[in-house]
Amino acid sequence: MSAYDALKEAAWRCNMELHALSLAVRTFGNASAVDRARGVIAIKPSGVPYGELRPDMMVVVGLDNAVVEGSLRPSSDTKTHTHLYRHFDGIGGVVHTHSPYATAWAQARRPVPVLGTTHADHLPEPIPCTAPLSDRAIRGDYEEETGKMIVRTFVHRSYEDVPMVLVAGHGPFAWGATPEAAVEHSFMLEALAKMACLTLTINPSARPLRQSLIDKHFRRKHGPGSYYGQPREGRAKGEHR
Amino acid sequence: MSAYDALKEAAWRCNMELHALSLAVRTFGNASAVDRARGVIAIKPSGVPYGELRPDMMVVVGLDNAVVEGSLRPSSDTKTHTHLYRHFDGIGGVVHTHSPYATAWAQARRPVPVLGTTHADHLPEPIPCTAPLSDRAIRGDYEEETGKMIVRTFVHRSYEDVPMVLVAGHGPFAWGATPEAAVEHSFMLEALAKMACLTLTINPSARPLRQSLIDKHFRRKHGPGSYYGQPREGRAKGEHR
Amino acid sequence: MSAYDALKEAAWRCNMELHALSLAVRTFGNASAVDRARGVIAIKPSGVPYGELRPDMMVVVGLDNAVVEGSLRPSSDTKTHTHLYRHFDGIGGVVHTHSPYATAWAQARRPVPVLGTTHADHLPEPIPCTAPLSDRAIRGDYEEETGKMIVRTFVHRSYEDVPMVLVAGHGPFAWGATPEAAVEHSFMLEALAKMACLTLTINPSARPLRQSLIDKHFRRKHGPGSYYGQPREGRAKGEHR
Amino acid sequence: MSAYDALKEAAWRCNMELHALSLAVRTFGNASAVDRARGVIAIKPSGVPYGELRPDMMVVVGLDNAVVEGSLRPSSDTKTHTHLYRHFDGIGGVVHTHSPYATAWAQARRPVPVLGTTHADHLPEPIPCTAPLSDRAIRGDYEEETGKMIVRTFVHRSYEDVPMVLVAGHGPFAWGATPEAAVEHSFMLEALAKMACLTLTINPSARPLRQSLIDKHFRRKHGPGSYYGQPREGRAKGEHR
Repeated sequence: MSAYDALKEAAWRCNMELHALSLAVRTFGNASAVDRARGVIAIKPSGVPYGELRPDMMVVVGLDNAVVEGSLRPSSDTKTHTHLYRHFDGIGGVVHTHSPYATAWAQARRPVPVLGTTHADHLPEPIPCTAPLSDRAIRGDYEEETGKMIVRTFVHRSYEDVPMVLVAGHGPFAWGATPEAAVEHSFMLEALAKMACLTLTINPSARPLRQSLIDKHFRRKHGPGSYYGQPREGRAKGEHR
Repeated sequence: MSAYDALKEAAWRCNMELHALSLAVRTFGNASAVDRARGVIAIKPSGVPYGELRPDMMVVVGLDNAVVEGSLRPSSDTKTHTHLYRHFDGIGGVVHTHSPYATAWAQARRPVPVLGTTHADHLPEPIPCTAPLSDRAIRGDYEEETGKMIVRTFVHRSYEDVPMVLVAGHGPFAWGATPEAAVEHSFMLEALAKMACLTLTINPSARPLRQSLIDKHFRRKHGPGSYYGQPREGRAKGEHR
Repeated sequence: MSAYDALKEAAWRCNMELHALSLAVRTFGNASAVDRARGVIAIKPSGVPYGELRPDMMVVVGLDNAVVEGSLRPSSDTKTHTHLYRHFDGIGGVVHTHSPYATAWAQARRPVPVLGTTHADHLPEPIPCTAPLSDRAIRGDYEEETGKMIVRTFVHRSYEDVPMVLVAGHGPFAWGATPEAAVEHSFMLEALAKMACLTLTINPSARPLRQSLIDKHFRRKHGPGSYYGQPREGRAKGEHR
Repeated sequence: MSAYDALKEAAWRCNMELHALSLAVRTFGNASAVDRARGVIAIKPSGVPYGELRPDMMVVVGLDNAVVEGSLRPSSDTKTHTHLYRHFDGIGGVVHTHSPYATAWAQARRPVPVLGTTHADHLPEPIPCTAPLSDRAIRGDYEEETGKMIVRTFVHRSYEDVPMVLVAGHGPFAWGATPEAAVEHSFMLEALAKMACLTLTINPSARPLRQSLIDKHFRRKHGPGSYYGQPREGRAKGEHR
């Protein structure tokens, strides 16, 4: 038994959920959960297939990237995760996948435009795509630099309103107030990326939604005047599921 | 026990069917059933995931939008449903989804042309796409305005022959004589939207079917001279399944 | 018990297989089997969903289109089936589906070109697409005319080498020496239509395979010099499965 | 019992895995495993559907193409497999499929460019597409010539770094140090081919990844400085699963 059992269990459950939702195959993708009080995260071990993952295999790593507990190597993307936790202080979980449609947009190096209300229900602007990393950043502390590039992309954006990003040429990262919310945002990102791809297939010059409609849908679900879903107390458990 | 148990059960079954047919994921989409004699509908509660839905969670709402029974908030799209029930008097059920191909056409803001007999078997003209709502309508009583825009789109169309619509920038609505028929039309809309998208991929300048072939196929299945399917009395139960 | 039990069972099994292979959904599509000695076919009843089909529901129809046995109406496409049986004397089964990729090519009114060896393994030329029916043919004996149009498309083709066709604006028909072979060809048609659609997405000006390679692959599997598969006697049962 | 039971079991397991991963349907595709010490391979029998395959049906063939054991005909592609084993001495398994996206690229006769890090994680350059075979090669010892053409494609490439190829107009072949690795590479090839196809749909002029990023990702997972996954001793069993 470990003092980090609950955290490891939460991280494990989210990793398994990525797999169950077909967002991650083979050894791709990774989810982590943070314990802010202790300053540690639990994250998937590197290169272990989902079919073999067990909660006790999760690696506990400090926000300073030092391994705290675990006999396996943490995900090679760990420094990107910890960088995000250090800079986005409201987040409780981070998810990285190579889900096909989201990855295709990242490879196309294009933000996903707000083409419909499904998008606006979840975020009030395009899903941003980072600038490419410089050769220097790539050859340096690469995973940390990836985290820095994501944070830079959010200088003039709210990481709470827009809980997801495409890393150019790489793939999607998502986060949320809880690890479950991060998984949910990762799922929505893939769904929005697919719908946007199909929309361009039908009409290559499809235009974004008008601003008033974006505002309307986003505010139906988010913020003080929202009226979508159930009031907190009456809310069925498992909000993100 | 409630006087509305049968109605709630019908609405619940249709919502679950949307999920089983992969037309609705997570908390997206909603189905309702009407009781014309009592002037009420039963509709999905807002933001509750399908995995947690039970018949007793359905919310009973008057056609005047007043909640009649239920402890949860009704779907945020309720006013669109009731508007349709008030104006299309032959309908018994309404379904709204964000199914990917139909939503992509709505986002592309294009009607689905009659490209083949599969389409003509079900409806004798393109699946219409509404005009966009004005900023004023969006900022006003939005869900009611969405209903009005749909009804306006049918001023010169038969809602019985064309039991479905794309709301521009949003997604599909479908309806039918029964709630089960509404689900069925929602399923067909997605299938037709997919085939039409693939057709344009193969031949971007594909032309609509000639009118005589549209008429032939539609009349094979609908109206007095129809000869598709079984005569009513000899018909296997579960016509829409 | 009926003298046609075995025939009805064969037709039923093929209809169910279409459904299991996702080639036919809801009430779409139909398969038939012929008994040449008695001059009858067994075919799916019109408009009955697959989930409700039972062997005894199959309708026995003469090659002259007279119903011989069965309390349900036969498929509305029956006359197309019987026309094919009368003109293609080597065939034992006919299948019609609305499978999405094959239907998209039919709607695009384009033959599927021989883009690869997967195609050439099965047929030595493009999957033909019929000419459109005239208004007169459509308003006349439509299903019979559809059969005639298919037969006309094969005046200079071998129905044995090319056991499938796209009916323009409608969808695919396939046939084979046995009902099981017809189902198999229907499955291959959909697979080839999908691969060809993806190929055009990647390279809109993709060219057909050179003739020598088409010949090589087709002859590896068909005719006297074939060396694909097992010699007849050593062949595992269920050749087409 | 046979002296080749373990080899046949390994080949059988990989063939079944191709089917389970939806990389091979019906009788398409084939996997083989080599026993270098004895100079033999075990390979799928020709034209037998996966549902009927049993380990004892695998055919044992010498690297000189003589059948050593088995009552069924070996895969018609056997000579391509043995050619690869003779020329790529580090490989333990070969896989051939007609998986849809990889086959579409082969039919489009285009190499799959390195559009993202998912690709670079697995191989440091485009997935090559062979030149077309000449009419003479096609009419001659075709399957052997296919092997020769693949080997020729690797004159200036490392078959270890790039364990896969597209045969122009035909489909994909993959190989690996073990038969399981060959299956894994076949799976990755299909995933990369799909993502690349979607990328081009979104942005037809998408550019390849910059070289420094390709190098970074490939070296994270391969070679002396790699840090992805677990050190060999600590590695969970079933590396390729």
